[in-house]
Amino acid sequence: MKKKKGMLIVLSGPAGVGKGTVCKALRNEGTDIQYSVSATTRAPREGEVDGVNYFFKSKEEFEKMIEGDRLLEWAKYVNNYYGTPLDYVEETIEKGYDVILEIEVQGALQVKRRYPSGVFIFLAPPSLKELRQRIEGRGTETKELIDNRMNVAKDEIELMDQYDYIVENDQVEHAVERIKSIVTAENCRKDRLIEQYKQIVEVE
Amino acid sequence: MKKKKGMLIVLSGPAGVGKGTVCKALRNEGTDIQYSVSATTRAPREGEVDGVNYFFKSKEEFEKMIEGDRLLEWAKYVNNYYGTPLDYVEETIEKGYDVILEIEVQGALQVKRRYPSGVFIFLAPPSLKELRQRIEGRGTETKELIDNRMNVAKDEIELMDQYDYIVENDQVEHAVERIKSIVTAENCRKDRLIEQYKQIVEVE
Repeated sequence: MKKKKGMLIVLSGPAGVGKGTVCKALRNEGTDIQYSVSATTRAPREGEVDGVNYFFKSKEEFEKMIEGDRLLEWAKYVNNYYGTPLDYVEETIEKGYDVILEIEVQGALQVKRRYPSGVFIFLAPPSLKELRQRIEGRGTETKELIDNRMNVAKDEIELMDQYDYIVENDQVEHAVERIKSIVTAENCRKDRLIEQYKQIVEVE
Repeated sequence: MKKKKGMLIVLSGPAGVGKGTVCKALRNEGTDIQYSVSATTRAPREGEVDGVNYFFKSKEEFEKMIEGDRLLEWAKYVNNYYGTPLDYVEETIEKGYDVILEIEVQGALQVKRRYPSGVFIFLAPPSLKELRQRIEGRGTETKELIDNRMNVAKDEIELMDQYDYIVENDQVEHAVERIKSIVTAENCRKDRLIEQYKQIVEVE
């Protein structure tokens, strides 16, 4: 029977909602899910390993990837490029593994245009008040910056409509359970399995 | 915030695949899922309780339900009616509970016409060979009857296309986990949650 392909799972949501924490907790569960590695032109920091933390690229290499359409999404911050290489995602999916991509909302919508068959999960705060408290809790930002983030978050919540699932991050372990359930359920979707099952009837 | 409605989950699949066993194991897990109770005109057997095992109805009552369009599906076997009362399902969903209905393939397709927003799960055997072994294992049927069941099962597998999910019943506990994941994931679907979340932005 033909081996089932993996799928692309995109986990996104407003800054401060806890994407990184949830993704790390999911990773610690030791599932079969693979994690996408971003490419960047910024210099490696101490201890960072090429192909693990990032794929470290020169400016020329990165621009060649852009021109060759080899990035699922990309952006430039403070003179450095950041992006998601398509090759890694495609190769891993082809091997039958699911790949998760943790990413900002704008990047996720870029991915969706490029890869509409992905599973798009919006990680949502229980309330805007709670989101503000989480951002304030970091203690790293001025009131003006926080107000700005909150306005961006409101706009991003309006973009939820473009996602397949909304996972409330009320508690990290609950959010992780919901994401694992979504991956399991998506792997049971008729559209992903029907060809295999039609073979059962033909073969036997 | 407006309370979320429950959803209808329909678990179906060919005879012998293990629907009853899986449903019983799911019930033993003690989730919040409610179980639909069928109506019938057959007499109660010893120990059977009205409203628990079945809603016991007279022929006239049942035919009134048919005429009034108060059944999600129904059929007549050996002079007795069997069917799924719509009222119980609707009331339970309205209270915010998910309701599961374990049912034959033909009945499930009737339900789908009547209630297309339900979540339709096809419980599939790992293979046709395995299905035959399970039916033979019951030791209650002649070879001819078994061959007939196998032909029906093949036709039913062709109807998988009308379902949302395919759950392989390789092991009961795996099938139960997959069904629980599907219910969790469906409760995270954007279409079911978006109105609640849009309120977050408006209210605060």
